[in-house]
Amino acid sequence: MSRPPGRKQENHKISRELLVLTYGALVAQLCKDYEKDEDVNTCLDRMGYGIGIRLIDDFLAHSAVTKCRSYSETADMIAQVAFKMYLGVTPSVSCSSAAGNEFSLILDKNPLVDFVEELPAERASLCYCNLLCGVIRGALEMVHLAAEVTFLQDRLKGDAVTEIGITFLRKAEDRKHKRK
Amino acid sequence: MSRPPGRKQENHKISRELLVLTYGALVAQLCKDYEKDEDVNTCLDRMGYGIGIRLIDDFLAHSAVTKCRSYSETADMIAQVAFKMYLGVTPSVSCSSAAGNEFSLILDKNPLVDFVEELPAERASLCYCNLLCGVIRGALEMVHLAAEVTFLQDRLKGDAVTEIGITFLRKAEDRKHKRK
Repeated sequence: MSRPPGRKQENHKISRELLVLTYGALVAQLCKDYEKDEDVNTCLDRMGYGIGIRLIDDFLAHSAVTKCRSYSETADMIAQVAFKMYLGVTPSVSCSSAAGNEFSLILDKNPLVDFVEELPAERASLCYCNLLCGVIRGALEMVHLAAEVTFLQDRLKGDAVTEIGITFLRKAEDRKHKRK
Repeated sequence: MSRPPGRKQENHKISRELLVLTYGALVAQLCKDYEKDEDVNTCLDRMGYGIGIRLIDDFLAHSAVTKCRSYSETADMIAQVAFKMYLGVTPSVSCSSAAGNEFSLILDKNPLVDFVEELPAERASLCYCNLLCGVIRGALEMVHLAAEVTFLQDRLKGDAVTEIGITFLRKAEDRKHKRK
């Protein structure tokens, strides 16, 4: 994954439908593999994490973003640049804590479920798009930001919107480290 | 999947890296699920078929292609329009039979393996990208073209290029049907 510095790469844009259908095949396979929705959700999150820690390199190479100076800037960057780049949508962002470390990405439309009509009754607890949480968590970790990322609302489950919650974790060790 | 006729749809373009990594996660999961490479290959082909029969609708809606009048035109369309649209690359096409029903799509570079260094020794018979064969087969079937689609060469296996072979099958029943 290492690339020669200073060399501009070609950025190949594709239609997202093959991604959406391939993702559907992945979720379907995991539903065959695991009986419990919780296990599918965990597996999707873990896979997403593995993707996020690799995708961040591509993101930094192509997005030309500079260092974010706040959690708020970081959340905006995820919504406006990363989501746009990899899913072709731009969620709206809201800060949901006085402490300024909790954010919601709100999707009126979630392209990853374009071909999904509804969850089967026996899969009511499935977080169909849980891979995205892992991707965000993994990518953030690679820029030294620990975060919890979960679905708070999901249109597939009857909610009005799809909402991904990101809670940035302030680590005692990090603060100590900075003081040195 | 049905859409109101005559209404132009927005076509969202995305970077392909999330597709490439998601596909990698799918193949890795199948390698966990199945011990034999042949079973993974079969499963990828079957999944691809399921994707192809759905993707064709999107392809016809967005590509503005008209009816192909020959196998040769169809092969060109797959290479120049479909591959470009969904993978961001354009394979070269060659006809490999005097009968005019066998074609090769030749990829100097296969983006689906961008993050794959090499196949593990114990997975020497894996057709990593076999999903693509199923996608092509499924999509062709939906426009009433029966075809066999297989990998003939694979750079992941040390070949100089990656080559997908498409053999269009002329069915006796089809010919009979046309005469009516």
